[in-house]
Amino acid sequence: MLSLIGIGLWDAEDISLKGLDIVKKADKIYFESYTSKLGCSIKKLERVYGRKVLVADRNLVEDGKEILKEAEKNDVVLLIMGDVFGATTHMDLFLRAKKKKIRTAIVNNASVLTAVGITGLSLYNFGKIISIPFDNKGIKSSYNKFLENKKNGLHSLFLLDLRVKEKNLMSIKEGLNYLIRNGLSKTNLCVGCAGLGSKKPEIKFGKVKDLLKFKFKKLPQCLIVPGKLQFYEEEALEFWK
Amino acid sequence: MLSLIGIGLWDAEDISLKGLDIVKKADKIYFESYTSKLGCSIKKLERVYGRKVLVADRNLVEDGKEILKEAEKNDVVLLIMGDVFGATTHMDLFLRAKKKKIRTAIVNNASVLTAVGITGLSLYNFGKIISIPFDNKGIKSSYNKFLENKKNGLHSLFLLDLRVKEKNLMSIKEGLNYLIRNGLSKTNLCVGCAGLGSKKPEIKFGKVKDLLKFKFKKLPQCLIVPGKLQFYEEEALEFWK
Repeated sequence: MLSLIGIGLWDAEDISLKGLDIVKKADKIYFESYTSKLGCSIKKLERVYGRKVLVADRNLVEDGKEILKEAEKNDVVLLIMGDVFGATTHMDLFLRAKKKKIRTAIVNNASVLTAVGITGLSLYNFGKIISIPFDNKGIKSSYNKFLENKKNGLHSLFLLDLRVKEKNLMSIKEGLNYLIRNGLSKTNLCVGCAGLGSKKPEIKFGKVKDLLKFKFKKLPQCLIVPGKLQFYEEEALEFWK
Repeated sequence: MLSLIGIGLWDAEDISLKGLDIVKKADKIYFESYTSKLGCSIKKLERVYGRKVLVADRNLVEDGKEILKEAEKNDVVLLIMGDVFGATTHMDLFLRAKKKKIRTAIVNNASVLTAVGITGLSLYNFGKIISIPFDNKGIKSSYNKFLENKKNGLHSLFLLDLRVKEKNLMSIKEGLNYLIRNGLSKTNLCVGCAGLGSKKPEIKFGKVKDLLKFKFKKLPQCLIVPGKLQFYEEEALEFWK
């Protein structure tokens, strides 16, 4: 059996009772380590779960053969940060398991895609979600997606790149600098979010030039450029000024 | 203190350890009952949480005065289906608490907005999320939003109305009939999802005319009309045919 278990955004205690129950009974527990970063250590996960947790890097998950082979005979868990199907790799692994007639279980959890609701921006009015990669010199596609959302009055959520091995997560400032280089005005309004899912997330609304100066402490961070605002969205954003 | 706690989509065991810890210690626990429907009863929630749960109807939450007054002196929990900020009312309550200097806590959880990732459609490529109301005679706005998404190649997720008191949840069939009345072709491709977050969600991909015939058993249900498909999305959808 292969269980894909979302473990949320920040703490070891973000796992659901349903997820923990499966983890407790599993033969082997992998933690996919490369799509995001939690606010706690793997040691902390192990302590709260009462189980040994093995780190699965991108190769192990993308190749998937070893995991699927084990799941044919044993109960294997893959712990996934955020919700389960944020990354296409996880879908790929799920479908390959299904096709091999391996039993599967999915346990959903919180995702950054809805945690940004704390900004007050309506989750109904977002357009395409946009990744900003570290190697973005000459990369126009992220900015073009933003222009498309903007044209349609939709909010743009930018997810910022990370290099897990180097422990390097892109900051809001770096994300903004990419957008500025491609033409975003420094007086454009935007929202920075750091440490979503933690007890004290940092949310800041203001002009690009003001957010460049603001010191966000937590990681990971993400960035929103609002589209057309409803009055209740404006009201909520004022609170984060 | 006011704690807004997402309790996920289906089972009483979908609550996180963090959420349950706050519930156990709270003075009073409300359950907002009107934005969706769980797969379990309130009795079941009470059994798993080990606490009395009071049903809060739309008036109590929208008015908010009673809840905020209690939260000034006591630890009050509002349990919210899905994630916390799906509905604007919850944001409103949160901000009013903040402005009154009442301590707040947010515990995120799974949402239908990312649980639809199980279809294989990339969560990055959705457009505006669209509600279809029961009273939709002559209502063009939902269909127009769909046309906008379609024009931009984006997937459209339709959330279907519910009348909690009458225990009436709109079915995929009713949603499709609204879209057909407004011009959607019966040969258009679409995806129906029922019971997302449950152990056996029902996912079906096919032409509108085929989905009209398919008997979805679980509730709540939702509906997706895909926009432009990536090859990996097509591949995944094939699995749900």
